[in-house]
Amino acid sequence: MMRILLKVAYDGTDYCGWQVQPGVPTVEGRLNEALSNLTGSPVTVIGASRTDAGVHALGNIAVFDYDGSIPAERISHAIQQYLPNDIVITQSYAVAADFHPRHTSTRKTYEYTYDTGEFPNPLLRRYSWHISCPLNIDAMNLAAADLIGEHDFASFCCVKTQAESTVRTIYSLQVERQESVLGKTVVLRVTGNGFLYNMVRIIAGTLSQVGTGRLKPSDVKGILDAKNRTKGGITAPPQGLKLVEIKFEE
Amino acid sequence: MMRILLKVAYDGTDYCGWQVQPGVPTVEGRLNEALSNLTGSPVTVIGASRTDAGVHALGNIAVFDYDGSIPAERISHAIQQYLPNDIVITQSYAVAADFHPRHTSTRKTYEYTYDTGEFPNPLLRRYSWHISCPLNIDAMNLAAADLIGEHDFASFCCVKTQAESTVRTIYSLQVERQESVLGKTVVLRVTGNGFLYNMVRIIAGTLSQVGTGRLKPSDVKGILDAKNRTKGGITAPPQGLKLVEIKFEE
Repeated sequence: MMRILLKVAYDGTDYCGWQVQPGVPTVEGRLNEALSNLTGSPVTVIGASRTDAGVHALGNIAVFDYDGSIPAERISHAIQQYLPNDIVITQSYAVAADFHPRHTSTRKTYEYTYDTGEFPNPLLRRYSWHISCPLNIDAMNLAAADLIGEHDFASFCCVKTQAESTVRTIYSLQVERQESVLGKTVVLRVTGNGFLYNMVRIIAGTLSQVGTGRLKPSDVKGILDAKNRTKGGITAPPQGLKLVEIKFEE
Repeated sequence: MMRILLKVAYDGTDYCGWQVQPGVPTVEGRLNEALSNLTGSPVTVIGASRTDAGVHALGNIAVFDYDGSIPAERISHAIQQYLPNDIVITQSYAVAADFHPRHTSTRKTYEYTYDTGEFPNPLLRRYSWHISCPLNIDAMNLAAADLIGEHDFASFCCVKTQAESTVRTIYSLQVERQESVLGKTVVLRVTGNGFLYNMVRIIAGTLSQVGTGRLKPSDVKGILDAKNRTKGGITAPPQGLKLVEIKFEE
């Protein structure tokens, strides 16, 4: 028996999130099905991040226990035929038998994409949030700086959270303009040791309000200090969010 | 009565191409419906490029005749509520009453995107062609140089074409690597005075064969000189193709 780590990329548009729920399509559910078909026995993965409905991932992580004959590194290839084309396993390898992706220290990186063109770009609509007014990037970065470090992020956490502590550390948080043939976008990139339920979307929503001038940059420090979700800004919609990468501490 | 020009962006994934066909969803069909609903009388647009099923556009052009009271510049906003979210009018303005987008000299720019990651990226799958072997960009650009200029592109034209002449001029054609958070892509960008049926996709397919080493760069000159589609390379699939821009000559 060995524990296999899978790096999982998916387009979350057509899923009710990561976590298995009865009667609806979920990424975890599809992955369990595919692995069960591949291995011939029921498989239940353990995921690192339970992303919300509509949220995407380039590098979510899941592990499962396996005692078959396919070499660990080949599982990413072998499973592909059992998966729909909006879920892809980009890497697979063996890890320690007691490795648990939610009980191991991590650095997670998320990106949030705002489409800032005058009209919503149809080629970005599945992967961005359209905000037609211009965003003041300098103001957003000024506010973002107050969120970097170890803080109680209760104001940036959905009240539905089950987390015991609302203290988290943000290692970096930047907003930058990106122009391409697809038009004008603004991308928020944040790395932290973990994120509370809806935390990145509330940060993205609150900073968008700073960008449009509805909030002053200095308001964000006040929101953080309030430790109260009702003082926070809006929750940005899920489709702009991508889990980019999870790194486990040695 | 005035003639209105519309700049049209769309995600072609769910359409059987631009041109109206009975019983299937088309971009032109949806646009005619939306304009008819907006104006209260039947509208038939004239499009500049009849893109194929699955091909995308950021800047296709259509015109129609209008004698209502909405200012030309406001039509792009007013029509939005009548369109599905994968078709967007990004600009509208009045043009000369005899302006015809297919009988006017143009410069058209297309992009073709190859996803060159080891696995197909689920966030790029609607907008790229996955080729898992590395592409030799220098070889592709060497071959591309032989296609620039005025040539008879019969070898790069679907035999179903109705065009009277297969002579066209390519003003520029380059291939470049683009790396982003979404992974490794290669983008072909081509500008010409017009393109034959499937021409950009046959160029993209043929140059991909140069990139993977199945064809030598110098083979492409031979293919061009043969003026025979059976000597050409493969046709790249539609989802990698985007009509980026159409400019009309003064």
